[in-house]
Amino acid sequence: MLWCDGRPVDGPVPFDLADRGLLLGDGVFDTALALDGRIAFEDAHVVRLVAAAETLGFAVPPERVVEAMRALAGTAPRTAIRTTVTRGPGPRGIAPPTDTRPFLFASAAPARPALAFAPMRLHRTAIRRNETSPASRLKTLGYLDAVLAARDAAAAGFDETLFLNTEGRVACTGIGNLLAVTGRTLVTPSLEEGVLPGIVRAQVLSLAKGLGLAAEERPLPLDACLAADAVILTNSLRLVSPVTAIGDHALGSLDNPVVASLSRAIREAVAASCGMAPEAVS
Amino acid sequence: MLWCDGRPVDGPVPFDLADRGLLLGDGVFDTALALDGRIAFEDAHVVRLVAAAETLGFAVPPERVVEAMRALAGTAPRTAIRTTVTRGPGPRGIAPPTDTRPFLFASAAPARPALAFAPMRLHRTAIRRNETSPASRLKTLGYLDAVLAARDAAAAGFDETLFLNTEGRVACTGIGNLLAVTGRTLVTPSLEEGVLPGIVRAQVLSLAKGLGLAAEERPLPLDACLAADAVILTNSLRLVSPVTAIGDHALGSLDNPVVASLSRAIREAVAASCGMAPEAVS
Repeated sequence: MLWCDGRPVDGPVPFDLADRGLLLGDGVFDTALALDGRIAFEDAHVVRLVAAAETLGFAVPPERVVEAMRALAGTAPRTAIRTTVTRGPGPRGIAPPTDTRPFLFASAAPARPALAFAPMRLHRTAIRRNETSPASRLKTLGYLDAVLAARDAAAAGFDETLFLNTEGRVACTGIGNLLAVTGRTLVTPSLEEGVLPGIVRAQVLSLAKGLGLAAEERPLPLDACLAADAVILTNSLRLVSPVTAIGDHALGSLDNPVVASLSRAIREAVAASCGMAPEAVS
Repeated sequence: MLWCDGRPVDGPVPFDLADRGLLLGDGVFDTALALDGRIAFEDAHVVRLVAAAETLGFAVPPERVVEAMRALAGTAPRTAIRTTVTRGPGPRGIAPPTDTRPFLFASAAPARPALAFAPMRLHRTAIRRNETSPASRLKTLGYLDAVLAARDAAAAGFDETLFLNTEGRVACTGIGNLLAVTGRTLVTPSLEEGVLPGIVRAQVLSLAKGLGLAAEERPLPLDACLAADAVILTNSLRLVSPVTAIGDHALGSLDNPVVASLSRAIREAVAASCGMAPEAVS
């Protein structure tokens, strides 16, 4: 199901082929989980999308984002909502128009319950995450590196991809953030390392203290990540996924008690946000 | 003017919002110059676009590209044609569909004669060109780094931007290739450095020998670029632009005899390709 221009739509929509989202990847998006019509961590998703557009230099009214997301939230009992906003149409070339008319649309698809908390094995790609670009900290429409790396990962029999940044330190995967667990300490790459300020990443960091965990945002060397007791991948649909291997290096993430307690805490946070626990909705 | 789905169109077109070009930057494009209805270096543009799509893993029939470009070539006496091809629609997520239906469209706009051979001053950006990504060698839809860098360049009073790659060596600008001239030697970063195989870049390299010039594709350190007698930017609309400054470092590109002879040679090559010289068409 789709939402476009303030109303539900079905099938193709009239579209301006001069839209800079299509021509130049000049836009940002968000992926959120809704359970039984309520969006998990709704405010955080809206704030991040509006801020991302502002970083690119155009304004998106938050109420339009909320309207689109809520219109789709009840599409399925368990819904994945993607909300996209582009800078809108512009003249030939790369310079933005002075008169910006952002284009906002959203789509909904049933989210597979099996995705949440499912373990993953990460392939290592030679493509680096470019932390020198502001785009590395935004969920922009330019997702081709993740697409190419995912293709290679699948061909090699893995679920997803580990990106290092240009300095050779751990950045993220193509679909979510990474956190390494050593003892009772969590380490996740700081935003400057070229990572998205993930919504579930922020939740985990904020829940850590209540679980008696130390949480640190700082550069994460690959060696330290491989030597960790456990590694988790976070994103809005998978929530907390234990990473069981990075390349041929096995990790003890499935049996780690910290991962188990973080998973419980995120489950409860989603339940508090949506009024129902993720496992209650199929 | 627009060409879409095998026919001329005007205004918005019916568009599938699940198109991966829009959602993920999963597509490539080409910009070409046409004079009085004839496309300069047509074959090279078609071959590069088809090969780029193939690198991404989908097929575009070259005859459809030719059809679109030729349909628009006579729109104005001097026409800039942008031809875009996306992987087409796909299901939620980043994995490509098994049934690929590429979407091809093209647009035409009058090309300003003043663009060709115009001198440019380059700003230096902190954003690096990511040569570890195959996308750095393709004209993909993910152009946000160039957009952001161009915004900064304009704000600082420059025309365009110099990108270094992640190793700190010269890569390219946001809109074209760079070549450094020292004595009678041309040096341009090799493709592995993270640059597009530009059509005019290839023309310059192939014309060099006939002009008694040595032409080398190899890594180009920034120091060597700044110490060059001249630097030129090449692209399909600007052809050969003398770079008169990089940041606050002035370059003698305007008065350089090699730049003058390369400009003449490109003018003649365009004339041979289009049946008329660029300056004959306003």
